[in-house]
Amino acid sequence: AEMSAIAKTPPPPYYAVIFTSVRTEGDGGFKQAAGEMEALGYSQPGFLGAESVRDISGVGIRISYWESLQAIENWKNNTKHQDAQKMGQDIWYSSFATRVCKVEKIGMFK
Amino acid sequence: AEMSAIAKTPPPPYYAVIFTSVRTEGDGGFKQAAGEMEALGYSQPGFLGAESVRDISGVGIRISYWESLQAIENWKNNTKHQDAQKMGQDIWYSSFATRVCKVEKIGMFK
Repeated sequence: AEMSAIAKTPPPPYYAVIFTSVRTEGDGGFKQAAGEMEALGYSQPGFLGAESVRDISGVGIRISYWESLQAIENWKNNTKHQDAQKMGQDIWYSSFATRVCKVEKIGMFK
Repeated sequence: AEMSAIAKTPPPPYYAVIFTSVRTEGDGGFKQAAGEMEALGYSQPGFLGAESVRDISGVGIRISYWESLQAIENWKNNTKHQDAQKMGQDIWYSSFATRVCKVEKIGMFK
Protein backbone atom coordinates (compact mmCIF):
# COMPACT_ATOMS: atom_id res chain seq x y z
CA ALA A 1 0.00 0.00 0.00
CA GLU A 2 2.84 2.36 0.80
CA MET A 3 4.23 2.33 -2.74
CA SER A 4 1.00 3.72 -4.17
CA ALA A 5 -0.31 5.73 -1.21
CA ILE A 6 0.78 9.03 -2.75
CA ALA A 7 -0.33 9.70 -6.33
CA LYS A 8 2.45 10.39 -8.82
CA THR A 9 0.88 13.42 -10.46
CA PRO A 10 2.43 15.70 -13.10
CA PRO A 11 3.48 19.27 -12.30
CA PRO A 12 0.54 21.63 -11.56
CA PRO A 13 -1.82 23.00 -12.61
CA TYR A 14 -4.30 20.14 -12.66
CA TYR A 15 -7.54 19.44 -10.83
CA ALA A 16 -8.58 17.50 -7.73
CA VAL A 17 -11.90 16.17 -6.51
CA ILE A 18 -11.95 15.84 -2.72
CA PHE A 19 -14.66 13.40 -1.64
CA THR A 20 -15.13 13.24 2.13
CA SER A 21 -17.71 10.76 3.39
CA VAL A 22 -19.08 8.92 6.40
CA ARG A 23 -20.19 5.31 5.81
CA THR A 24 -23.42 3.92 7.14
CA GLU A 25 -23.38 0.56 8.96
CA GLY A 26 -23.25 -2.65 6.90
CA ASP A 27 -21.88 -3.30 3.44
CA GLY A 28 -24.97 -3.04 1.21
CA GLY A 29 -22.94 -3.82 -1.90
CA PHE A 30 -20.47 -1.03 -1.14
CA LYS A 31 -17.23 -2.97 -1.21
CA GLN A 32 -17.79 -4.54 -4.61
CA ALA A 33 -19.11 -1.32 -6.16
CA ALA A 34 -16.22 0.71 -4.72
CA GLY A 35 -13.74 -1.68 -6.34
CA GLU A 36 -15.57 -1.46 -9.66
CA MET A 37 -15.78 2.34 -9.54
CA GLU A 38 -12.10 2.61 -8.66
CA ALA A 39 -11.15 0.48 -11.68
CA LEU A 40 -13.55 2.36 -13.95
CA GLY A 41 -12.27 5.72 -12.70
CA TYR A 42 -8.69 4.73 -13.46
CA SER A 43 -9.66 4.04 -17.08
CA GLN A 44 -11.22 7.48 -17.69
CA PRO A 45 -9.61 9.97 -20.08
CA GLY A 46 -7.79 12.67 -18.15
CA PHE A 47 -7.47 10.65 -14.93
CA LEU A 48 -4.11 11.34 -13.25
CA GLY A 49 -4.25 9.33 -10.03
CA ALA A 50 -6.01 8.99 -6.68
CA GLU A 51 -5.38 8.83 -2.93
CA SER A 52 -7.87 7.13 -0.64
CA VAL A 53 -8.12 6.49 3.09
CA ARG A 54 -10.95 5.28 5.34
CA ASP A 55 -10.55 4.78 9.08
CA ILE A 56 -12.25 2.22 11.29
CA SER A 57 -14.89 4.77 12.38
CA GLY A 58 -16.11 4.92 8.75
CA VAL A 59 -14.81 8.38 7.86
CA GLY A 60 -13.13 8.41 4.47
CA ILE A 61 -11.34 10.84 2.19
CA ARG A 62 -10.77 10.05 -1.46
CA ILE A 63 -8.97 12.48 -3.75
CA SER A 64 -8.89 11.91 -7.47
CA TYR A 65 -6.68 14.00 -9.73
CA TRP A 66 -7.64 15.07 -13.26
CA GLU A 67 -6.20 16.90 -16.22
CA SER A 68 -9.18 19.21 -16.69
CA LEU A 69 -12.59 20.24 -15.38
CA GLN A 70 -14.05 18.63 -18.50
CA ALA A 71 -12.55 15.26 -17.52
CA ILE A 72 -14.17 15.60 -14.07
CA GLU A 73 -17.51 16.50 -15.64
CA ASN A 74 -17.31 13.51 -17.99
CA TRP A 75 -16.65 11.13 -15.10
CA LYS A 76 -19.44 12.70 -13.03
CA ASN A 77 -21.84 12.02 -15.91
CA ASN A 78 -20.68 8.44 -16.61
CA THR A 79 -23.80 6.25 -16.43
CA LYS A 80 -22.34 3.55 -14.18
CA HIS A 81 -20.81 6.21 -11.95
CA GLN A 82 -24.17 7.98 -11.71
CA ASP A 83 -25.77 4.71 -10.55
CA ALA A 84 -23.07 4.46 -7.87
CA GLN A 85 -23.55 8.10 -6.88
CA LYS A 86 -27.25 7.42 -6.30
CA MET A 87 -26.44 4.35 -4.16
CA GLY A 88 -23.98 6.46 -2.21
CA GLN A 89 -26.51 9.16 -1.52
CA ASP A 90 -29.35 6.75 -0.71
CA ILE A 91 -27.57 3.94 1.14
CA TRP A 92 -23.81 3.96 1.66
CA TYR A 93 -23.12 7.39 3.17
CA SER A 94 -24.69 9.15 6.12
CA SER A 95 -23.03 12.37 4.95
CA PHE A 96 -20.58 13.47 2.29
CA ALA A 97 -19.10 16.47 0.52
CA THR A 98 -17.54 16.78 -2.92
CA ARG A 99 -15.13 19.63 -3.56
CA VAL A 100 -13.65 20.44 -6.96
CA CYS A 101 -10.28 22.20 -6.75
CA LYS A 102 -7.48 23.48 -8.92
CA VAL A 103 -4.09 22.24 -7.67
CA GLU A 104 -1.68 25.15 -7.85
CA LYS A 105 1.43 23.96 -5.98
CA ILE A 106 2.92 20.70 -4.77
CA GLY A 107 5.77 19.66 -2.51
CA MET A 108 6.76 15.99 -2.31
CA PHE A 109 9.37 14.40 -0.07
CA LYS A 110 11.14 11.08 0.24
CA ALA B 1 -16.59 11.98 15.14
CA GLU B 2 -19.37 11.93 12.57
CA MET B 3 -20.64 15.39 13.51
CA SER B 4 -17.31 16.99 12.66
CA ALA B 5 -16.03 14.62 9.97
CA ILE B 6 -16.98 17.01 7.17
CA ALA B 7 -15.77 20.60 7.52
CA LYS B 8 -18.46 23.28 7.44
CA THR B 9 -16.77 25.61 5.00
CA PRO B 10 -18.18 28.83 3.49
CA PRO B 11 -19.14 29.04 -0.20
CA PRO B 12 -16.14 28.87 -2.59
CA PRO B 13 -13.73 30.18 -3.58
CA TYR B 14 -11.33 29.38 -0.75
CA TYR B 15 -8.14 27.32 -0.47
CA ALA B 16 -7.25 23.78 0.58
CA VAL B 17 -3.99 22.15 1.62
CA ILE B 18 -4.05 18.41 0.91
CA PHE B 19 -1.44 16.63 3.04
CA THR B 20 -1.07 12.94 2.19
CA SER B 21 1.40 10.98 4.30
CA VAL B 22 2.64 7.54 5.29
CA ARG B 23 3.65 7.12 8.95
CA THR B 24 6.80 5.37 10.03
CA GLU B 25 6.61 2.73 12.78
CA GLY B 26 6.45 3.85 16.41
CA ASP B 27 5.13 7.05 17.94
CA GLY B 28 8.28 9.18 18.35
CA GLY B 29 6.30 12.03 19.89
CA PHE B 30 3.91 12.11 16.94
CA LYS B 31 0.61 11.77 18.74
CA GLN B 32 1.20 14.60 21.19
CA ALA B 33 2.65 16.90 18.54
CA ALA B 34 -0.21 16.15 16.13
CA GLY B 35 -2.72 17.17 18.79
CA GLU B 36 -0.81 20.35 19.53
CA MET B 37 -0.48 21.23 15.83
CA GLU B 38 -4.17 20.60 15.25
CA ALA B 39 -5.11 22.95 18.09
CA LEU B 40 -2.60 25.57 16.95
CA GLY B 41 -3.81 25.29 13.34
CA TYR B 42 -7.42 25.88 14.43
CA SER B 43 -6.36 29.15 16.08
CA GLN B 44 -4.68 30.61 12.98
CA PRO B 45 -6.15 33.64 11.18
CA GLY B 46 -7.94 32.54 8.01
CA PHE B 47 -8.39 28.91 9.10
CA LEU B 48 -11.77 27.59 7.89
CA GLY B 49 -11.77 23.93 8.96
CA ALA B 50 -10.10 20.57 8.43
CA GLU B 51 -10.82 16.95 7.57
CA SER B 52 -8.45 14.21 8.65
CA VAL B 53 -8.30 10.43 8.28
CA ARG B 54 -5.56 7.87 8.89
CA ASP B 55 -6.08 4.15 8.34
CA ILE B 56 -4.52 1.25 10.25
CA SER B 57 -1.82 0.81 7.59
CA GLY B 58 -0.51 4.29 8.44
CA VAL B 59 -1.67 6.13 5.31
CA GLY B 60 -3.28 9.45 6.15
CA ILE B 61 -4.93 12.35 4.39
CA ARG B 62 -5.44 15.68 6.13
CA ILE B 63 -7.11 18.58 4.35
CA SER B 64 -7.11 22.02 5.90
CA TYR B 65 -9.20 24.83 4.45
CA TRP B 66 -8.14 28.47 4.38
CA GLU B 67 -9.44 31.89 3.38
CA SER B 68 -6.37 32.85 1.35
CA LEU B 69 -2.96 31.77 0.09
CA GLN B 70 -1.48 34.28 2.52
CA ALA B 71 -3.11 32.49 5.47
CA ILE B 72 -1.57 29.21 4.24
CA GLU B 73 1.84 30.86 3.88
CA ASN B 74 1.61 32.33 7.40
CA TRP B 75 0.79 28.92 8.87
CA LYS B 76 3.58 27.25 6.89
CA ASN B 77 6.04 29.78 8.37
CA ASN B 78 4.77 29.53 11.97
CA THR B 79 7.83 28.67 14.11
CA LYS B 80 6.22 25.84 16.08
CA HIS B 81 4.73 24.45 12.89
CA GLN B 82 8.13 24.58 11.19
CA ASP B 83 9.60 22.54 14.05
CA ALA B 84 6.83 19.98 13.52
CA GLN B 85 7.39 19.97 9.75
CA LYS B 86 11.05 19.12 10.34
CA MET B 87 10.12 16.27 12.70
CA GLY B 88 7.67 15.03 10.09
CA GLN B 89 10.27 15.02 7.36
CA ASP B 90 13.02 13.49 9.54
CA ILE B 91 11.11 11.02 11.71
CA TRP B 92 7.34 10.65 11.47
CA TYR B 93 6.72 10.12 7.74
CA SER B 94 8.27 7.70 5.28
CA SER B 95 6.76 9.74 2.45
CA PHE B 96 4.40 12.67 2.06
CA ALA B 97 3.04 15.23 -0.38
CA THR B 98 1.56 18.67 0.21
CA ARG B 99 -0.73 20.12 -2.44
CA VAL B 100 -2.10 23.66 -2.33
CA CYS B 101 -5.42 24.04 -4.16
CA LYS B 102 -8.12 26.57 -4.88
CA VAL B 103 -11.57 25.14 -4.11
CA GLU B 104 -13.90 26.17 -6.92
CA LYS B 105 -17.09 24.14 -6.35
CA ILE B 106 -18.71 22.16 -3.56
CA GLY B 107 -21.65 19.80 -3.23
CA MET B 108 -22.76 18.67 0.23
CA PHE B 109 -25.46 16.18 1.04
CA LYS B 110 -27.30 14.96 4.14
